Amino acid sequence: MMNGRASVAFSVVVVAAVCWLAGAHAATVWPQPLQMATTRDVYHLDVSFFFNSSSTSDIFLAAARRYETLMTPFMVSNGDFTMCQVNIASKNESLTLDTNESYSLSVSSSGVIINAETVFGAMHGMETLSQLVTRDGVNGTEVNDSPRFRYRATMIDTSRHWYPVVVIKAHLDAMAYAKMNVLHWHIVDDVSFPYESLTYPKMSKSGAFSPSHVYTQADIKELLEYYLALRGPTLLQFDTPGHARAGYNTVSDLVTQCYNKKGEPAGTGPLNPTLDSTYDFLTKFFAEIKNVFPDKFVHVGGDEVGFGCWESNPQVSKWVKNHPNISTYAELEQYYELNLLNILGQQGSSYICWQEIFDNGIKILPDTVVEVWKGNGWNDTMARVTKAGYHSVLSAPFYLNYISYGQDWVNYYKVEPTDFDAPEADKDRLVGGIEACMWSEYVDATNFIARFWPRAAAVAERAWSAKNVTDVSSAGPRLHEFRCKLNARGINAEPAMDGAINGGDYSYCDSEFVPVYQPPF
Amino acid sequence: MMNGRASVAFSVVVVAAVCWLAGAHAATVWPQPLQMATTRDVYHLDVSFFFNSSSTSDIFLAAARRYETLMTPFMVSNGDFTMCQVNIASKNESLTLDTNESYSLSVSSSGVIINAETVFGAMHGMETLSQLVTRDGVNGTEVNDSPRFRYRATMIDTSRHWYPVVVIKAHLDAMAYAKMNVLHWHIVDDVSFPYESLTYPKMSKSGAFSPSHVYTQADIKELLEYYLALRGPTLLQFDTPGHARAGYNTVSDLVTQCYNKKGEPAGTGPLNPTLDSTYDFLTKFFAEIKNVFPDKFVHVGGDEVGFGCWESNPQVSKWVKNHPNISTYAELEQYYELNLLNILGQQGSSYICWQEIFDNGIKILPDTVVEVWKGNGWNDTMARVTKAGYHSVLSAPFYLNYISYGQDWVNYYKVEPTDFDAPEADKDRLVGGIEACMWSEYVDATNFIARFWPRAAAVAERAWSAKNVTDVSSAGPRLHEFRCKLNARGINAEPAMDGAINGGDYSYCDSEFVPVYQPPF
Repeated sequence: MMNGRASVAFSVVVVAAVCWLAGAHAATVWPQPLQMATTRDVYHLDVSFFFNSSSTSDIFLAAARRYETLMTPFMVSNGDFTMCQVNIASKNESLTLDTNESYSLSVSSSGVIINAETVFGAMHGMETLSQLVTRDGVNGTEVNDSPRFRYRATMIDTSRHWYPVVVIKAHLDAMAYAKMNVLHWHIVDDVSFPYESLTYPKMSKSGAFSPSHVYTQADIKELLEYYLALRGPTLLQFDTPGHARAGYNTVSDLVTQCYNKKGEPAGTGPLNPTLDSTYDFLTKFFAEIKNVFPDKFVHVGGDEVGFGCWESNPQVSKWVKNHPNISTYAELEQYYELNLLNILGQQGSSYICWQEIFDNGIKILPDTVVEVWKGNGWNDTMARVTKAGYHSVLSAPFYLNYISYGQDWVNYYKVEPTDFDAPEADKDRLVGGIEACMWSEYVDATNFIARFWPRAAAVAERAWSAKNVTDVSSAGPRLHEFRCKLNARGINAEPAMDGAINGGDYSYCDSEFVPVYQPPF
Repeated sequence: MMNGRASVAFSVVVVAAVCWLAGAHAATVWPQPLQMATTRDVYHLDVSFFFNSSSTSDIFLAAARRYETLMTPFMVSNGDFTMCQVNIASKNESLTLDTNESYSLSVSSSGVIINAETVFGAMHGMETLSQLVTRDGVNGTEVNDSPRFRYRATMIDTSRHWYPVVVIKAHLDAMAYAKMNVLHWHIVDDVSFPYESLTYPKMSKSGAFSPSHVYTQADIKELLEYYLALRGPTLLQFDTPGHARAGYNTVSDLVTQCYNKKGEPAGTGPLNPTLDSTYDFLTKFFAEIKNVFPDKFVHVGGDEVGFGCWESNPQVSKWVKNHPNISTYAELEQYYELNLLNILGQQGSSYICWQEIFDNGIKILPDTVVEVWKGNGWNDTMARVTKAGYHSVLSAPFYLNYISYGQDWVNYYKVEPTDFDAPEADKDRLVGGIEACMWSEYVDATNFIARFWPRAAAVAERAWSAKNVTDVSSAGPRLHEFRCKLNARGINAEPAMDGAINGGDYSYCDSEFVPVYQPPF
């Protein structure tokens, strides 16, 4: 997976050089393509417009139908184009983080053409075309595009609040529109365990808020099918050995009993790393996960492990004394993590972990991906992680749950993920990408979409577009346009721009989002 | 209107004394009633339950139907009660800020009884009952309730972003659930003029974002009818002489042309106070407003008037020179405001204005209500306004558009509006109430409800409940319960409490809000 950033072969100078040719109302694309040139020629799609291809792939056909429908409001009688020719070079439809996502798009008097190596690149091309077509038609356009980073993720937390499936679907659609490709589903945590396990059904029966606050196997299948057709890998998280309270306590001896200074029981802590039964559980549980989630990756957590609880437990501390090769509790965690990663490796899974595993000096397997999440000094951490030769993913500056007044998307937009001290070649090879996180202490179905979007779109452009696409003042109007497109597509992305500036230029959308409200009387 | 706070006749000690008797799951009420006692007896409403009254008022009948429907999910076969007897003493249904809103509610083995002076008090009683009835039934309860402040307002701004009518309806419903009674509709401002004027139709044709971003006369009629049946007066704002750019510039000579230091035209400023035609416009315009909006009150604005523009305009400055009784531009504003208030007075309207009119030392009519909105030193301003004998409304600490991370409703909840230096009798007589404002720089239909609610509910309790109802730790769980009730009623109020605390006790609602999302393909 983490083969680093895609190479940036095209020059982006073309964008600046040709933009002045564009008609005043030429539509823009978010995230900014690598190379895009626009002419003053304006064309219209005919009402009969469709995507034509020799591909008979289900994924292609479904995407074609989606994008034809999205553009239908902008098709006219006697339009210039009745089709877009889509050429897909490879029939390989396996979707990994190494999948070639590049595409080219041409709109000219010769017609509309998309060329791509894979069906997934072709879908990005359709998305770009759908953003360029408005009620004013579509300008002549040449696009050559590919992502800067291969890992362009959002993280959702369904433990601190639970989201109905429909909310996750809307979010997945928004991700596809923003060309993001990884969903990091932080599905369980201390607060609740909404995953319905086939092997350990008691975990959600006891650990979920209620029987209706559970993702059933049917829910997950529905979401994965919805997701897979649209875009990239799912990353599922079962955060161990810490953050494992709700649910895990239904498996006997799995969770460590903590004790206070008087030797009285005082809550529970991380999984117990000293018992064979723990690894027996992990083997069976992750075998189930591997079966339910087709993706190769698991996010194993590893953050905020409470060593104090392990130390307070007589059985655990005695075990440590009896194992001279383990002299600290950090080494005990290392023992746990190595066992866990070996289990996953034997099952053919790969893994991402939070930065603590690295911070604690734990020797981990060389192909582990380290997610840097701590805000203070993330630049130094990135430098240390890549110097140690590990692949990395950066989420620290992209915690979208922290809200503030005003156009705070700018804060995310301004971050340069490779702004740390390391050889450029190491950055290219080892920085896999970035992730916009929405921890759900204060977020549920009532505000999830509006709070995530379009702020996550700022992260999407940082992840997809070239390194030098950083101008906030030109990004603002484009982001406004993108959020209006999201609104028109039923995604209630909130305003991106101050409604009072520029005489109200960014105060409204041609087609406003109208929520459904039916008073219950 | 501003006859000050309703008298607090009951002791609230009863609440504390009797609460321990309640069953563990006795429902709570938001805002906290003045006097409420609960027993361990639990009753159930029968499926045939209805509100019975000798009143044949349309308002009563509509309210009865609403609340019967709201409670239907909690009615059972063979329930204890088949009706609630509603006794309304007065047939007077005129609704002003002097309307008696008190009520009593009794739920006991003798039945369910609401007594009220007016139909509006009776509606508050029905709301309270509807919050007490859950799937667990309703505990025996005695409530005696009346509001602390008569003016319990929210302010919406439809100039910086425009809201569809359905969003305002949802907001009005939420206000009724929280026993708020005044909608301050900041309908126009510099950025856009979405009010369709009958007398001056060009104002919205030129000043609105688009023809679809307009509140037509039909929209306003629909909203007022929806509103009036439910609750209190509407306060409409036409902010003059400043904040009057969009729309006003379609009326010839109305807006002052500003000039730069070179004498070149440089934008437009406040209304021109020196021309008779300006007062002719105001007379005709506010006559229309008086006709369209039945309420006695107008919010005339008066904030942030740009004196520099007046000074730069040769015609205005010459006029000032020729009027020796006007030596400063503050005095020119005074001249404008006195003329405007006289026009409104002759039309039988009353008026509220922003604090600048008072701050600028302008002599205003004694019955003017001053709204204190400036955050810095609001306590001192309240002291000065009341010392000068004016009625006041406080919004400064309740600007809900300013968001911050976490349980920020606590910031609003902790404010004591009478925390300023003045004789208690003056406070009682002159502090009319408080107002939660949502300026819409960053708010539109996508996020309006979730951002306003339940944070505005904290303001609602401060406005309704007794002065000593201030305990944040007991308010939190009640606010969580109230927001769950809002969710169940289709209002997407966001989480009030940290989902990670207390093992997730406040992380979820029995009945979660499920947004409607239909992808457009």
